[in-house]
Amino acid sequence: MTILIRGGTVVTHDDIYRADVLCVDGRIAAVGVDLEAPADAEVIDASGQYVMPGGIDPHTHMQLPFMGTVASEDFYTGTAAGLAGGTTTIIDFVIPNPGQPLMEAFETWRGWAEKAASDYAFHVAVTWWDDSVHEDMGTLVREHGVNSFKHFMAYKNAIMATDDILVASFTRCLELGAVPTVHAENGELVYHMQQKLLAQGLTGPEAHPLSRPPQVEGEAASRAIRIAGTLGTPIYVVHVSCRDALDEITYARRQGQPVYGECLAGHLMIDDSVYRNADWAKAAAHVMSPPFRSKAHQDALWTGLQSGNLQTTATDHCCFCDDQKAMGKDDFTKIPNGTAGIEDRMAVIWDEGVNGGRISMQDFVAVTSTNTAKIFNMYPRKGAIQEGADADLVVWDPSATRTISAKTHHQNVDFNIFEGKTVRGIPRHTISQGKWVWRDGQELHAEKGAGRYIERPAYPGVYDVLKKRAERNAATAVER
Amino acid sequence: MTILIRGGTVVTHDDIYRADVLCVDGRIAAVGVDLEAPADAEVIDASGQYVMPGGIDPHTHMQLPFMGTVASEDFYTGTAAGLAGGTTTIIDFVIPNPGQPLMEAFETWRGWAEKAASDYAFHVAVTWWDDSVHEDMGTLVREHGVNSFKHFMAYKNAIMATDDILVASFTRCLELGAVPTVHAENGELVYHMQQKLLAQGLTGPEAHPLSRPPQVEGEAASRAIRIAGTLGTPIYVVHVSCRDALDEITYARRQGQPVYGECLAGHLMIDDSVYRNADWAKAAAHVMSPPFRSKAHQDALWTGLQSGNLQTTATDHCCFCDDQKAMGKDDFTKIPNGTAGIEDRMAVIWDEGVNGGRISMQDFVAVTSTNTAKIFNMYPRKGAIQEGADADLVVWDPSATRTISAKTHHQNVDFNIFEGKTVRGIPRHTISQGKWVWRDGQELHAEKGAGRYIERPAYPGVYDVLKKRAERNAATAVER
Amino acid sequence: MTILIRGGTVVTHDDIYRADVLCVDGRIAAVGVDLEAPADAEVIDASGQYVMPGGIDPHTHMQLPFMGTVASEDFYTGTAAGLAGGTTTIIDFVIPNPGQPLMEAFETWRGWAEKAASDYAFHVAVTWWDDSVHEDMGTLVREHGVNSFKHFMAYKNAIMATDDILVASFTRCLELGAVPTVHAENGELVYHMQQKLLAQGLTGPEAHPLSRPPQVEGEAASRAIRIAGTLGTPIYVVHVSCRDALDEITYARRQGQPVYGECLAGHLMIDDSVYRNADWAKAAAHVMSPPFRSKAHQDALWTGLQSGNLQTTATDHCCFCDDQKAMGKDDFTKIPNGTAGIEDRMAVIWDEGVNGGRISMQDFVAVTSTNTAKIFNMYPRKGAIQEGADADLVVWDPSATRTISAKTHHQNVDFNIFEGKTVRGIPRHTISQGKWVWRDGQELHAEKGAGRYIERPAYPGVYDVLKKRAERNAATAVER
Amino acid sequence: MTILIRGGTVVTHDDIYRADVLCVDGRIAAVGVDLEAPADAEVIDASGQYVMPGGIDPHTHMQLPFMGTVASEDFYTGTAAGLAGGTTTIIDFVIPNPGQPLMEAFETWRGWAEKAASDYAFHVAVTWWDDSVHEDMGTLVREHGVNSFKHFMAYKNAIMATDDILVASFTRCLELGAVPTVHAENGELVYHMQQKLLAQGLTGPEAHPLSRPPQVEGEAASRAIRIAGTLGTPIYVVHVSCRDALDEITYARRQGQPVYGECLAGHLMIDDSVYRNADWAKAAAHVMSPPFRSKAHQDALWTGLQSGNLQTTATDHCCFCDDQKAMGKDDFTKIPNGTAGIEDRMAVIWDEGVNGGRISMQDFVAVTSTNTAKIFNMYPRKGAIQEGADADLVVWDPSATRTISAKTHHQNVDFNIFEGKTVRGIPRHTISQGKWVWRDGQELHAEKGAGRYIERPAYPGVYDVLKKRAERNAATAVER
Repeated sequence: MTILIRGGTVVTHDDIYRADVLCVDGRIAAVGVDLEAPADAEVIDASGQYVMPGGIDPHTHMQLPFMGTVASEDFYTGTAAGLAGGTTTIIDFVIPNPGQPLMEAFETWRGWAEKAASDYAFHVAVTWWDDSVHEDMGTLVREHGVNSFKHFMAYKNAIMATDDILVASFTRCLELGAVPTVHAENGELVYHMQQKLLAQGLTGPEAHPLSRPPQVEGEAASRAIRIAGTLGTPIYVVHVSCRDALDEITYARRQGQPVYGECLAGHLMIDDSVYRNADWAKAAAHVMSPPFRSKAHQDALWTGLQSGNLQTTATDHCCFCDDQKAMGKDDFTKIPNGTAGIEDRMAVIWDEGVNGGRISMQDFVAVTSTNTAKIFNMYPRKGAIQEGADADLVVWDPSATRTISAKTHHQNVDFNIFEGKTVRGIPRHTISQGKWVWRDGQELHAEKGAGRYIERPAYPGVYDVLKKRAERNAATAVER
Repeated sequence: MTILIRGGTVVTHDDIYRADVLCVDGRIAAVGVDLEAPADAEVIDASGQYVMPGGIDPHTHMQLPFMGTVASEDFYTGTAAGLAGGTTTIIDFVIPNPGQPLMEAFETWRGWAEKAASDYAFHVAVTWWDDSVHEDMGTLVREHGVNSFKHFMAYKNAIMATDDILVASFTRCLELGAVPTVHAENGELVYHMQQKLLAQGLTGPEAHPLSRPPQVEGEAASRAIRIAGTLGTPIYVVHVSCRDALDEITYARRQGQPVYGECLAGHLMIDDSVYRNADWAKAAAHVMSPPFRSKAHQDALWTGLQSGNLQTTATDHCCFCDDQKAMGKDDFTKIPNGTAGIEDRMAVIWDEGVNGGRISMQDFVAVTSTNTAKIFNMYPRKGAIQEGADADLVVWDPSATRTISAKTHHQNVDFNIFEGKTVRGIPRHTISQGKWVWRDGQELHAEKGAGRYIERPAYPGVYDVLKKRAERNAATAVER
Repeated sequence: MTILIRGGTVVTHDDIYRADVLCVDGRIAAVGVDLEAPADAEVIDASGQYVMPGGIDPHTHMQLPFMGTVASEDFYTGTAAGLAGGTTTIIDFVIPNPGQPLMEAFETWRGWAEKAASDYAFHVAVTWWDDSVHEDMGTLVREHGVNSFKHFMAYKNAIMATDDILVASFTRCLELGAVPTVHAENGELVYHMQQKLLAQGLTGPEAHPLSRPPQVEGEAASRAIRIAGTLGTPIYVVHVSCRDALDEITYARRQGQPVYGECLAGHLMIDDSVYRNADWAKAAAHVMSPPFRSKAHQDALWTGLQSGNLQTTATDHCCFCDDQKAMGKDDFTKIPNGTAGIEDRMAVIWDEGVNGGRISMQDFVAVTSTNTAKIFNMYPRKGAIQEGADADLVVWDPSATRTISAKTHHQNVDFNIFEGKTVRGIPRHTISQGKWVWRDGQELHAEKGAGRYIERPAYPGVYDVLKKRAERNAATAVER
Repeated sequence: MTILIRGGTVVTHDDIYRADVLCVDGRIAAVGVDLEAPADAEVIDASGQYVMPGGIDPHTHMQLPFMGTVASEDFYTGTAAGLAGGTTTIIDFVIPNPGQPLMEAFETWRGWAEKAASDYAFHVAVTWWDDSVHEDMGTLVREHGVNSFKHFMAYKNAIMATDDILVASFTRCLELGAVPTVHAENGELVYHMQQKLLAQGLTGPEAHPLSRPPQVEGEAASRAIRIAGTLGTPIYVVHVSCRDALDEITYARRQGQPVYGECLAGHLMIDDSVYRNADWAKAAAHVMSPPFRSKAHQDALWTGLQSGNLQTTATDHCCFCDDQKAMGKDDFTKIPNGTAGIEDRMAVIWDEGVNGGRISMQDFVAVTSTNTAKIFNMYPRKGAIQEGADADLVVWDPSATRTISAKTHHQNVDFNIFEGKTVRGIPRHTISQGKWVWRDGQELHAEKGAGRYIERPAYPGVYDVLKKRAERNAATAVER
């Protein structure tokens, strides 16, 4: 299949220039001015538009079994909605139950994901520890292209990883060249605050943010970063929502430690007043962890992206419908945690970021796609516009507008946290694996099962630096 | 008994002025110019000298059973050495074994301390948790004048307090108006690093600092501070040894959180090169936790005192002799942790701090005495020179010098970490409970058993602020 | 004259206790429980009330000739209003015109101030430089008890001190043991922004804050602090209004540099929305420099007080009535800069600070009185409650309320920036020089001319530290 | 001319991969695996080596007239030495005398530079101000490809730009889309300290660093950054030498301000002990401004590069021989300021940075070449390896070593600040404009006059962001 994108302006993470882009058999075959259209080529007119690498969402939870129910969005509907929004790759999470073999969980998720419409990869969560976990991590890295492991520092009595697990797993990551990632909230504190608030009679969604204030997140970020720093691994903090956690990342980076931070489209836009909505359902629809924060924290996240202390944006796309949220009607701790966003991430970040004078277009590409590809070692197959790269592209129309609504979105959920927001700048066309899957801002040609599992090799570049550093330090530390 | 200190310059934490000080029956009876000497008064000539509140050492471990042995300094010898050094009050630690009732341990330590020569108080450690601990904390605060509880975040498999204990105990402190304190080191990380170093064949004292690098301390400080902040208690971090922990304290204080930091005389003066001494015994003699750090960290501690982010100085006086240290000959993790210093703290801080142009004389009084009295609610009975205060005083000779040595010190231990250091500025006389116990820089008249247990009332002032703050926050946080 | 304040709770900057206070002939004669009332004593019942040192306002401009007019409040009316508000001492400013001899200006201001009802002192501004200024600074310090000199870094083409003047004057301060102080705004930038805004047709008060954004203040604070740091003087930054300047102070203090910061009651309470008031007169009434800032900056100032990075509070009391403000009807740069506050400072800071759970009562005393006395070397004559101190006291009623209004205030100005604010906690009685000048929250017995000029000796304590530090540094810096 | 670089590993600022590189007629014609060698091609065997963009040194002063003499290195010898070191482009400085028309100076420098062996561009200094300067800046930007202007905040009584000039020039830069750059030292303070030290009899090189301590640089960096921030321009700080200046850059970047920082190879490696060398000539040979700093500052600079707060590395290459330095024999302020380094920059940064585990190879390319090209709008013509880019390349041998010495270097100066340092990793071949100018680590084929003047277009991307930001802010700031 051959597509020529003609007349557009290519925007990458570090350049802008006029060029056509030719896609042949799923790969980018040429980038250049006035390319000749092959005989069989479909031609997309991109004049007045930007041609950018397709988005990568490094944080989704399709059809996740969680808190007694299952997320409403499956791998097909979710990735299809992503394509409509300009996102062409996701990294989802394999989350074993405590005690469940990692390989077994991995195979389960691989099965679920076969219906995906776009490419995908997996982080695997370490929710418990024994020798088999140690073994399976090796198998996953060496034989299955998994180079990142997730650790939940929250969710006590469920999937929480305590310090002994963090130390063991990070150490194993170091051996394997994998990147540890963390959900940073102190689970003990959250649990305590939840019990205290319930005891005070605060059972509604307004108690949710009170049960996990910013310090709870700052604490866990600090802990994970310092464990990583002591052991000599990089560390990636998912969904940084507040200044407290950002400050920890910034503090460590200023000292040369390789720490990465991700923030969510929702945390960049929405503040915690939503939890005090008089309509229980609307308030509950926003329950996710970490919760939405005050505007001062939103501002901090934007400056994190601007200064490079945060590198990636994601959604933590995890959908629960009204009836599912209602499970927590009498107890906010039972409201399934999660919100949607995969379809809207690119557009809302463009609108607030680029139109708002906060980030450049190159920054936009970096934080929605390229940086993720680099950190998780998919670059330049993903996140790049160059010969040989996967033909995952979005043609962006900077002047068109769209008003976001659950009524019109493709996501399989009955609520949209960006409801009513009008964005200027939309994905006009999306190319996935060289196929024209989203056309003219309206036609979705997502194909069930077209998505491929993407292997990510171990030893991202940062480990070279860390190994040399460790050798240098060891040479001087112990002479007597 | 009546003593008139005549002709000196009184230095308090915030003033300097010429005045005589009259002590009658253990209390200060008058402070003023040209006081009349009562008929029965002993008169001390303080001309050319400074009259200051006696030192308070908030961190000592007399005759502590620890790591399979018992600290060589008992409550008599230790407090006597303190008096020779100008320190007139200590706060020692009751450390129950896990499972041991707090009250039982408290009574044990009370018994041991009866031989003390100077006044003393106790922090009580929370090393485990059940309902009886909760109860005993109440008893200690309400009936025994204990207003501070200690938590060891290190020493895994021994007395380490995990997050659930910290949360429970800090919450209890809030109910009681007591101040939680922490030894801030991440015990899991320390344990892991110890095992790793031993496996690498690093068994000597040079491995000790490698097993507990600064990040390990910064992590725990961050964690304790944020747990306290979330729960609404103040927090006191003992023996801050490095920039990492200091930065956490400073970060929280800049946001208005009541956090206090203590540093040790040793950490202010001695760097980590001592662990690479070719003489095993000398290296081992410096093994304590947190370990001595690089000079950059020392500089940071001084600026912490200067900027007010650290408020108190202590010693962690915990003595083990050569033969005791030798228990770890083949395994550095078995070297009993601890160093001496109660006799030298005041002099070395004066010499480096006041003579060195780092702190003022008023600052000196603040950080060696008054601030501790305020934080732990003994002020102005202790730490002040005013009518009615306890007559615990030191007459300081700013021009005399002394060369510190284990050969001449009064401490019951065979090593001195300040060996050979010559200080200018020494305690010429010490008054304890109105008695002249250290005379002319040479005669020690310490009386076994003269020391009294000092009760410290709950609800230090900071809790008033915190309660109002909590009410203000609660009023706005949950309206829907 | 003898007054006994009976039954109150004494609050000082570092203690709270029940005591009576006896004032005889202008001084505190005794502080103690159940003091006997002398025969001739007036007795003030202070039960249920707090007895605190009278406020010191280190920043006022009575009857200042400025911007083509003269401040409406003179030394009598202004100090009288201060007494009604619990403030018993002011430090005003002598501001020579460029070219005018300092001594001449000093004498002029001394003359004006003779009518003052409370004690007062003067900072003297250095607005130009030649040898006579150098000489006069010496005369002022040595013969007239001036130990602080002010430098305006703003007001280009008027009284602005450029870097060469700052360097010369700070150097002279070092020789004399005086404290340099600065109004920190970059005058070049302000001038440029003013011209630019006027050229854009922005002529109203809403342009005032735009012409002097926070960076303009942060810049000047940084510059003054670093000049002081390089030369080896302390530095005091007046009216810190924003995080930018506070961060500079904090940064320097963390490195052990003696830097002091003052903030204004107005900046703690009022935000910049006032400049966009549709009523020109109301907007103009708030024009002062630095301008009021956004709420985030207010929060920062409070944390500055909490953390000790700001030490004092003031008003910059400088009154202009409606008709005076109208001089800038067509050009915001011609609106006389200044607002009132001397009468309300103590009450609004108590209400927001103490009642609001931000600072303790001791902190309140420290930031409204004692810290100023210490920094400018009037302590313990001022700012203390102890035998021998000046009998300048306020008896504070923590439960009474007052609604602030220009209709009822004693200040000689037709506007009140705190109009309509109801405070809980008011000065019930004020004692000035041992005289009962404000009675029962309603009767003002201010006596014209009763105020005395207070000499402040040179060499506040911080210089001892700085001198030792300089010697230590010099000893090691140049050896070859 | 055609060259095929075969068998190497291409390293760019964000990727590493095996590829051959074909250079035809001065440009890169192809990058790919197993490229066919054209018939006329010279083939360079790069197996085991890295192929990287040629270095760009953004800070050199060839044949500069300065301090009464002229730098010994001219545009030919200097660029030739650069080629031997792997640097293929320089940005030098046009420095008009105060009063001299900018265009006249520009033409003078253009004439001097015609003999250059490698490509070059110019920053133009603004050393005075009147309408003609305003005009000439426009001409330079619009007609001569100058997009950056330099401002010396030091050198009082010579080329120092005071605040009024900074404000005027930065404002002009904003209109033109040019980048202001600053030499950040407070000239008033430096002048004062110089006079003071001379008066104290300190006339030797050891006084040089004392006359310009880190605070002097931190001050000026803060000032320039805040002026830029207020006016809405980006700002580039040259030769950041200390933590103080770096902290200012970091502070501003954390708030989203576009601030760039450059550091010198010398400042990364050499500490201030050199000024206390007993050999006057050796000490004087190190005199440059800002001076070399203590090791703590070196560490800070490395973390600045690691964290991205510093983006570029340079040399400030400005050579004076022994007899020239001797002009300051009796007065350190007369020692011509400057040191060499263009030949050694790449190698010493590789050795300490990459070998030392501080930065990755991609980081190395970024900080020695690509980032400079981006900031000054030469990318991807310079700083990139891609079809169409200039064929400026270095083939790097990571295992070869070289011992640096003035005896063997190509620089036209008799001293080398890196004398005796052995580096591992050297430029084996250099390609400039598609010509093989440095061969096998030994043969230099630099051609006089081969270098071209490189035009740099205005409006680097950051201005798009700043314009949108300014519009957003203006829209909300003035509504009443």
